[in-house]
Amino acid sequence: MKPATLKEIAQKLNISVSTASKALKDYPDVSKKTKALVHELAKTLNYKPNSLAVNLRNKETKTIGLIVPEVVHHFFSSVIKGIISQAEKKGYLVIILQSNESYKLEKKQLNLLMQQRVDGILISLANGTADFMHLNEIVAQDKPLVMFDKIAKLVRCSKVIIDDRKAAYDATQHLIDIGCKKIAHFRGALLPQNSIDRFLGYKKALLDNQMDYDPSLVYICECGDKSFEEGKTNALQLLEDHTDVDGIFINTDLVAIGALTAFQEKGIQVPNDIAVVGFSNWFMSSVISPSLTTINQPGFLMGKTAFKQLYKEIKSKKKNKPIALKEIILQTDLIQRASTTLSS
Amino acid sequence: MKPATLKEIAQKLNISVSTASKALKDYPDVSKKTKALVHELAKTLNYKPNSLAVNLRNKETKTIGLIVPEVVHHFFSSVIKGIISQAEKKGYLVIILQSNESYKLEKKQLNLLMQQRVDGILISLANGTADFMHLNEIVAQDKPLVMFDKIAKLVRCSKVIIDDRKAAYDATQHLIDIGCKKIAHFRGALLPQNSIDRFLGYKKALLDNQMDYDPSLVYICECGDKSFEEGKTNALQLLEDHTDVDGIFINTDLVAIGALTAFQEKGIQVPNDIAVVGFSNWFMSSVISPSLTTINQPGFLMGKTAFKQLYKEIKSKKKNKPIALKEIILQTDLIQRASTTLSS
Repeated sequence: MKPATLKEIAQKLNISVSTASKALKDYPDVSKKTKALVHELAKTLNYKPNSLAVNLRNKETKTIGLIVPEVVHHFFSSVIKGIISQAEKKGYLVIILQSNESYKLEKKQLNLLMQQRVDGILISLANGTADFMHLNEIVAQDKPLVMFDKIAKLVRCSKVIIDDRKAAYDATQHLIDIGCKKIAHFRGALLPQNSIDRFLGYKKALLDNQMDYDPSLVYICECGDKSFEEGKTNALQLLEDHTDVDGIFINTDLVAIGALTAFQEKGIQVPNDIAVVGFSNWFMSSVISPSLTTINQPGFLMGKTAFKQLYKEIKSKKKNKPIALKEIILQTDLIQRASTTLSS
Repeated sequence: MKPATLKEIAQKLNISVSTASKALKDYPDVSKKTKALVHELAKTLNYKPNSLAVNLRNKETKTIGLIVPEVVHHFFSSVIKGIISQAEKKGYLVIILQSNESYKLEKKQLNLLMQQRVDGILISLANGTADFMHLNEIVAQDKPLVMFDKIAKLVRCSKVIIDDRKAAYDATQHLIDIGCKKIAHFRGALLPQNSIDRFLGYKKALLDNQMDYDPSLVYICECGDKSFEEGKTNALQLLEDHTDVDGIFINTDLVAIGALTAFQEKGIQVPNDIAVVGFSNWFMSSVISPSLTTINQPGFLMGKTAFKQLYKEIKSKKKNKPIALKEIILQTDLIQRASTTLSS
């Protein structure tokens, strides 16, 4: 049973919260009868006195928890590095957990971190997360929580993100600007907000340019362990489905590199047959041939910024000051490389 | 002042350890005078009764600490994934710290982990670590410690490694087998054991094949953040220094990919002009063109194995059983790809 609040006890007995509080603390100005009633109800409803809760809450462990969908991942490992570099400066240790894109695991891991009494939690959601109760519970328990990259808009906590919709719009507009007439999109999984936003940015750019939006040009990839393979598979499927596609905007660089590999194997010239834009600016994107035009997604900065915000909230809470929730949007840029630079 | 041991107290008073122990516990069969002397000396020498030490020691936090030189690193992020996947199964949380290849930071981080009372520590050493006192102190405090990949041979703890010397020997022998006559080596930094061992394996293969060992063919790279750039720079330098080199064995894949990029820019044909073997089998090695022959270094398995060993030691210690230290050597294989497959 979930412990009752003092307010609930007061309401049930039709007394004020302050009377209920005084009764529990055995103040002389409350009648014995009221005291007995409050004590009894508190026991029945499993009420835990706030003083204890406050003590537990204020005890710092100087550790924070971090949950990411995947550790072996160019973007998330940069975020992790940003977080631990900043945490180090402030004397915090970081417990890192990997949700493997699983909602169930993510939920379990949040519980583990709470049991461990971390001072705050940073999280980027699993693709499988469609229900946010486990996050709302963290917020309800007054534990500083900052989401980054893959967030849930409706959870009342600070967020550090990029403007995925705008970035995707820019990427698609760039393909249109270089002359692409039929542009496909390899999108991410269905649930994560950033994958939805990138898709919407793609779609909006098409419509703003009076181009048709054709759902059959949108391919899904889960973007987990198998990103590279998914890129290859989707690219081969695309070549079968649509012979006249001349541009693709792809959800992440690793998938894009898979697609480039498939095109190379099939003798498709990039960018002259098909121009390709990726997303994330993984350093390999500048190294491969042809080098990949992409959106620069600042992972290290995102990690640093997320920790800084969490740190502020931890400090505010310690001083019993109100926490000012923030939504911080980091800047992205399009980096043009060979995969969209047409030889004339 | 470092707390005295019971043994030191007994020696100073010229009594047996068991008498000193009994005196502190107020046993009736020890004289009042002896008890007073023992108590006084214990206080003077800052002796902490063992019972307390044992309590602290046995109190599990269900967390372990992990120190790696670098998080954004194909090999270490695989190791991290192996460790946290295994820790998850056993209900342990992993605090991850990054030493940035700095001895000073590594030392500080070990202290932080001890203060945090982790149940055990996994570490891969920074390139800057040449002194091992900080590690010996962990061992002296009876804290389970397992080193992996970059280890210090002389520290008395379990180790999970590959046979770097043999792997490097195999890589160099492969270059000799395909007909290379003058083989360079891009080695890692000077201190880490694995970088020394890879160099020694390279040298031994040359000598076993009656080929000259020429120190001017050995180039150093720090293999940190700048690996890719170092690979390019070293490759360009090599082309200036030695026009007749026809093979290179390179310490890690990322450096090797840098070298391949430089060769491509300079119009050097790989493998026909220069054959290249890397080390680690990062998945990008199979994707780039030409694909890279390399040594498969099992990062995920190394992480899993290191955690399993640490877990055994934590359990043994809890049961006051002796800890059996192990040196576990994981298998490596040479994976031949295009960068050493000569067209005939």
